[in-house]
Amino acid sequence: MAKVLTSRSENYSQWYQDLVIKADLAENSAVRGSMVIKPYGYAIWEKMQAELDRMFKETGHENAYFPLFIPKSFFSKEASHVEGFAKECAVVTHYRLKNDEVNGGVMVDPDAKLEEELIVRPTSETIIWNTYKNWIQSYRDLPILINQWANVVRWEMRTRLFLRTAEFLWQEGHTAHATKQEAIDETKQMINVYADFAENFMALPVIKGTKTDNERFAGALETYTIEALMQDGKALQSGTSHFLGQNFAKAFDVKFASKEGTEDYVWATSWGVSTRLMGALIMAHSDDKGLVLPPKLAPYQVVIVPIYRNEEQLAAISEKVNEIVSKLKVKGISVRYDDKDNRKPGWKFAEYELKGVPVRIAIGPRDLENGTVEIARRDTLEKNVTSIEGVDEYIENLLDEIQENIYAKALNFRAENTVKVDTYDAFKKAVKKGGFVLAHWDGTSETEERIKNETKATIRCLPLEYEEEEGVCIFSGKPSKRRVLFAQAY
Amino acid sequence: MAKVLTSRSENYSQWYQDLVIKADLAENSAVRGSMVIKPYGYAIWEKMQAELDRMFKETGHENAYFPLFIPKSFFSKEASHVEGFAKECAVVTHYRLKNDEVNGGVMVDPDAKLEEELIVRPTSETIIWNTYKNWIQSYRDLPILINQWANVVRWEMRTRLFLRTAEFLWQEGHTAHATKQEAIDETKQMINVYADFAENFMALPVIKGTKTDNERFAGALETYTIEALMQDGKALQSGTSHFLGQNFAKAFDVKFASKEGTEDYVWATSWGVSTRLMGALIMAHSDDKGLVLPPKLAPYQVVIVPIYRNEEQLAAISEKVNEIVSKLKVKGISVRYDDKDNRKPGWKFAEYELKGVPVRIAIGPRDLENGTVEIARRDTLEKNVTSIEGVDEYIENLLDEIQENIYAKALNFRAENTVKVDTYDAFKKAVKKGGFVLAHWDGTSETEERIKNETKATIRCLPLEYEEEEGVCIFSGKPSKRRVLFAQAY
Repeated sequence: MAKVLTSRSENYSQWYQDLVIKADLAENSAVRGSMVIKPYGYAIWEKMQAELDRMFKETGHENAYFPLFIPKSFFSKEASHVEGFAKECAVVTHYRLKNDEVNGGVMVDPDAKLEEELIVRPTSETIIWNTYKNWIQSYRDLPILINQWANVVRWEMRTRLFLRTAEFLWQEGHTAHATKQEAIDETKQMINVYADFAENFMALPVIKGTKTDNERFAGALETYTIEALMQDGKALQSGTSHFLGQNFAKAFDVKFASKEGTEDYVWATSWGVSTRLMGALIMAHSDDKGLVLPPKLAPYQVVIVPIYRNEEQLAAISEKVNEIVSKLKVKGISVRYDDKDNRKPGWKFAEYELKGVPVRIAIGPRDLENGTVEIARRDTLEKNVTSIEGVDEYIENLLDEIQENIYAKALNFRAENTVKVDTYDAFKKAVKKGGFVLAHWDGTSETEERIKNETKATIRCLPLEYEEEEGVCIFSGKPSKRRVLFAQAY
Repeated sequence: MAKVLTSRSENYSQWYQDLVIKADLAENSAVRGSMVIKPYGYAIWEKMQAELDRMFKETGHENAYFPLFIPKSFFSKEASHVEGFAKECAVVTHYRLKNDEVNGGVMVDPDAKLEEELIVRPTSETIIWNTYKNWIQSYRDLPILINQWANVVRWEMRTRLFLRTAEFLWQEGHTAHATKQEAIDETKQMINVYADFAENFMALPVIKGTKTDNERFAGALETYTIEALMQDGKALQSGTSHFLGQNFAKAFDVKFASKEGTEDYVWATSWGVSTRLMGALIMAHSDDKGLVLPPKLAPYQVVIVPIYRNEEQLAAISEKVNEIVSKLKVKGISVRYDDKDNRKPGWKFAEYELKGVPVRIAIGPRDLENGTVEIARRDTLEKNVTSIEGVDEYIENLLDEIQENIYAKALNFRAENTVKVDTYDAFKKAVKKGGFVLAHWDGTSETEERIKNETKATIRCLPLEYEEEEGVCIFSGKPSKRRVLFAQAY
């Protein structure tokens, strides 16, 4: 077994790295900080995209495409945006190479210098609002409800596959509205769409909330987030939705004539999730044997492995398997029959466990005689022998059960790793142990900053669901009316 | 009518530009040479993507994702590739901006200069073959059949929406094979997939053929192309598939152990189509009233416009329309009901003609009484009154008929604009008139070049389907055994 993983308890970070590479999800490329997403990993991302895209369209959004490059000057237009964003990014300065007569190969042509440098988009608010300026004159042009699937680049110094890479894939929604309330409603709608997707497709329980001033998106008045808990007790911010107020409309001078004939700046939102979700999916559910995929996002939900000694046996098995495959397909279940002869069944079993295929069916000559198959579920690793008759319904139910069980397990893990603390000592202990920590906070950035410096824990969000209660800030002792969610985070 | 187009006869090029912008397909952006693809245009591209992606998967390909950036040195590795490609492209030299203390705004941080410049991919052969090197050891690792949907950048000096832009969207297939024959078969298979897509979805007749030495892809041994004829008599190269031999395997040292234990370089292909297909689709079928979309690629195939004087009439019409909409949806026909009250029916009629919606249904109070609707087809602009009873089947058949008619019309146009010539005088006259010109050629690059310089006509391809015949080159008078396809081209 060449492909054995480092165990989680031994080294969680190495386990993750091993898993991503050995399950053929992604790998580092020759370009610092940029990854190659391999076909199996990309197939999971395509499943995510398809569901999210459907949800965006069902909520009235359309897709469009805006330029990869943004003129440098655009970043100076929205003051807080430039502070938060425009620094670590890839800068295009030239547009031509030429033969290097001295050293051979090619060199940058010094005569082909751009008048104004172009920035590879780290996010597209600026170029999009510069475009919306020409699209919006009157209330009749509103709302604009647009999403873009794209690659973006942020020059990260320390990168980790899927979790933090220089280039990543994402979607970014950018909407324009006539009223403040409509924009706020849109912001909330989209964080709910993300939470729905995380919980019902990724089987990932999330806490919805708002970010503090410190953690808010550069240029936003309010940032909504979904926060998930990973198995190492760290939080992962999994999606954000921003109410941008009129900041970008003012920066790019986007006004509209209202029904009443007055003129006002347009209200904006933006919202996004990225290939970082792949990291969340992998880390939340997987175990020391490999990936555990929720059936709704598995590239194939069932794999069938034949057990045979000779061609004759294989032929008889394959005939029966073809029947099973047909029945499963009728039910919309995706299935792969692995009858390749270059690997032994044991190798295949390990390989598909590594790849997180939700259900494995094994079938041999004895099974044919008995009219049975052996079914192994990936989430619990339990095996069962069941009748071929009705196996399609059995598996249909089993896939639902696995989807629910993975979610329940993650929810249970989160419950066991969420504590309320009321003193700073207890807080520090809890943070050290890992997990979500609910504590009172005095509402100041100063306290937040000092807690972060001393414990590495940040306020992940002010949860939308909370109970009002009298308390005192764990750090300053000042009065507080609610708990907020702390954790160390990716 | 603010949205009237320049006519084709008046100024074909302006007509195209007007149409792309006024039908809300795309527009120029603030970044030189980069376009914004607007939602309606992007919806057509999504339809194209979906069909092509299905066809790629049916022929055994998987999607993956490789980095946007390519180290400069990679371009020097394949000699002919660097000659043909690496020159006009966007070069990233820095990775950070900083506040400009003197002038305000931001400036490129001179301390953040990359050791090696990164090129924004103009095509991905180099980075992909550098990756394949690590994936391929033995014949068991072959074939690799991968496709990527991505953005690429080629610094074009003269750009036109969809036809030639600095950044464009495309797919690029990159496959690796154990044998030469398998790679050649793959190359041919993919040009057939493209031709199938062009003819059966885009309703665009194409001529399949191979490129001459001059026109071949940089690094390929053979380039297959599909060539379409536009209404102005110019050819548009619409897709290419390249047999790359062992060139990239040699450049990146990608060898494999064969079944027999020998070691050999891997055989390669690459193939791609881009948002340029949008240009082909628009130019091939549209008229002076706007876009004409083949039903299979229309974002919505049917639009329903109510004709009414008061709310009561609208309510009665809407009730009937909802029935029609349900029936159409059951048949998988996409339909939009435009009951917006801010525009008159005449305005809407013109708007949907401009946007190329294949079928328009108008329904008013008189229609309700008679149990009829008025149906207008976009391709011929004919109107018909038909019974509401069975309208779903009527439209289902009509959409098929429109798809076929658009194709037949384009095929007929091509037949009328394809000539065989046998003298250079006749050739020059034919090229000036426009259209495809079939002529004998002596097979030399020199003759090809001189014809191009004198007439602007290039050899579009050596058609795969041809009859052997004795002849003499129109230019040199040397003997030739077949005709090749000439045209002026986009």
